[in-house]
Amino acid sequence: MATHKLLLLPGDGIGTEVMAEVSRLIDWLNKAGIAKFETEHGLVGGAAYDADKVAITDATMALAQASDAVIFGAVGGPKWDGVPYEARPEAGLLRLRKDLALFANLRPAVCYPALAEASSLKPEVVEGLDIMIVRELTGGVYFGEPKTITDLGNGQKRAVDTQVYDTYEIERIGRVAFDLARKRRNKVTSMEKRNVMKTGVLWNEVITAVHQREYKDVQLEHQLADSGGMNLVKWPKQFDVIVTDNLFGDMLSDIAAMLTGSLGMLPSASLGEVDSKTGKRKAMYEPVHGSAPDIAGKGMANPVAMLASFGMALRYSLDMGDLADKLDAAIAAVLAKGLRTADIKSEGATVVSTSQMGEAIVAEL
Amino acid sequence: MATHKLLLLPGDGIGTEVMAEVSRLIDWLNKAGIAKFETEHGLVGGAAYDADKVAITDATMALAQASDAVIFGAVGGPKWDGVPYEARPEAGLLRLRKDLALFANLRPAVCYPALAEASSLKPEVVEGLDIMIVRELTGGVYFGEPKTITDLGNGQKRAVDTQVYDTYEIERIGRVAFDLARKRRNKVTSMEKRNVMKTGVLWNEVITAVHQREYKDVQLEHQLADSGGMNLVKWPKQFDVIVTDNLFGDMLSDIAAMLTGSLGMLPSASLGEVDSKTGKRKAMYEPVHGSAPDIAGKGMANPVAMLASFGMALRYSLDMGDLADKLDAAIAAVLAKGLRTADIKSEGATVVSTSQMGEAIVAEL
Ligand SMILES: CC(C)[C@H](C(=O)O)[C@@H](O)C(=O)O
Ligand SMILES: CC(C)[C@H](C(=O)O)[C@@H](O)C(=O)O
Repeated sequence: MATHKLLLLPGDGIGTEVMAEVSRLIDWLNKAGIAKFETEHGLVGGAAYDADKVAITDATMALAQASDAVIFGAVGGPKWDGVPYEARPEAGLLRLRKDLALFANLRPAVCYPALAEASSLKPEVVEGLDIMIVRELTGGVYFGEPKTITDLGNGQKRAVDTQVYDTYEIERIGRVAFDLARKRRNKVTSMEKRNVMKTGVLWNEVITAVHQREYKDVQLEHQLADSGGMNLVKWPKQFDVIVTDNLFGDMLSDIAAMLTGSLGMLPSASLGEVDSKTGKRKAMYEPVHGSAPDIAGKGMANPVAMLASFGMALRYSLDMGDLADKLDAAIAAVLAKGLRTADIKSEGATVVSTSQMGEAIVAEL
Repeated sequence: MATHKLLLLPGDGIGTEVMAEVSRLIDWLNKAGIAKFETEHGLVGGAAYDADKVAITDATMALAQASDAVIFGAVGGPKWDGVPYEARPEAGLLRLRKDLALFANLRPAVCYPALAEASSLKPEVVEGLDIMIVRELTGGVYFGEPKTITDLGNGQKRAVDTQVYDTYEIERIGRVAFDLARKRRNKVTSMEKRNVMKTGVLWNEVITAVHQREYKDVQLEHQLADSGGMNLVKWPKQFDVIVTDNLFGDMLSDIAAMLTGSLGMLPSASLGEVDSKTGKRKAMYEPVHGSAPDIAGKGMANPVAMLASFGMALRYSLDMGDLADKLDAAIAAVLAKGLRTADIKSEGATVVSTSQMGEAIVAEL
């Protein structure tokens, strides 16, 4: 049995609580002889800042580079509002994405049937919803230079951010989207603002060219990101795979997640390029929700998104798709039994704590 | 009675159809002696391109500069997908905004009670919704330089857009938001991505400073634009006034509009600075919806957003707030009678054409 090296980075807030449930699952899988995991632990975000005055240390980055997959909790919180910009909690997450070259962020927005009523949208609009947002993650306005604030004198400052995209960056994220669509409902919607942004013009041109050259069998449509956002709210089931840039992806994937009513349930994967020699790719898995400082430390957090993220790691990095299926089934079974954490509670359901939910899922497995 | 000079720019698609209803209303107001309007007409967008190979001519811009208010329909459509970037339909709209220095875009998102059921959201989430999005309109990534596509050779291109904000630009849009909040529910939510963008850091800093200095009586909160988008979908009634930059404002105001189920009903105003000598400000009024090429020419378009935009002109530019109130009441009365254009049709309602709706509203007045 192959040994898999995992780096666990719980981060801040509820990150540590939900990561504890991943550890519970890993321990059980190791003990039951179902898999063989070696885990390292590291600090990231505010927790790293408190210890080392940086958002992630070089030593932790080295562990990330050496792991088969990074399992990431969440970062940030008001406690670190005043830290220097370069050391703010999010900088740890951004460094992981950039240094591991995790250019493809996969964010499924799935409406769990048991939770359709938790959505602010009408049940018929979201029931059965299953879309995949493919967000470019290492380019765009997140990393483009210049990115500066300059003092102009007279009490005036000028802030600048730069959105940059090269052809190859759009091509490779396009391929990820088209490949995923082939395994799903065979449709890709590309979103940009080509009517205002030059990066939108290039994005549109390159996605169209990749489609023409390599993926003519997949249906491709283009939407402006603002109308795309409207369409997401109006009738999300029109979408299968959405491919978009880093900043639009940030907004649109969060909105899509919220539509489902299942925010505490949604995992994500961030993938690098496949190494042509080893056949492996760098990868990080994290829940879509954040560190939720308001409920941190209360044992109330929903561990499902974190566990489902671990499930994505099994599927995309560790070649254990069967086990991932079993984990997904265990989660569905526990929900079907009426167990709910506070964020998804509904009438007639049993409200349980983070660890009770984790225990129940492991027991179901 | 003062004479008001208006420039009507119908634009493309349903723009011409809904503008015809504004003309109907203006004619009636002139004839009834209720007001005195002098109107000029001009081309913008694809219509201007077809005639003059530009998205708006200098002559039309001169008319806009000389008018008390510009009434704008909508621009764009697949017909002009292939025109040169500088002459694309949207360029006409962007030139109007920039050359008239219309830095403040006011987009009310109101849920008309009669239309709550048209929303994809649950009625209890949107009923009674009344928020005001204040979007910065002449800065940010829309106009920052460099904005280029460069050929790098080897089949690679690089596209660049630049988001720039200066202190004074954030201050003046902040003041617009705080002033509006004072006349509403006294709360402003500022949205940016300070955890990723330097413009977000400056935005946050300047809005906070303006608040401290001049508007301590107004409640101010800050949200990251991605969680802000989520909160809009989850529970929009938590907001009163939202102030945000040009690109986030584009996305968030469209999403807010769609939430209400009243997209065909929503007006917007784009305002310049008040001239300290004349006390006047440049202004343009346009519906939130676009040119809807799919239904153009069929007499199906909903003229309410366009008429309500004219109503905002009465209120904000022409000092006829009473008449604006009457117009709003006439619109509400016609809806209450069950008249609906196709976009908002519901059981038991009478479906009418664009001109029938316009006629009914004028008759009600
Ligand atoms: C925490 C923040 C830097 C991050 C982002 O903006 O990418 C988050 O919102 C996300 O979507 O993963
Ligand atoms: C037509 C387009 C250039 C415009 C924008 O992006 O500002 C539109 O979407 C809007 O919101 O008014």
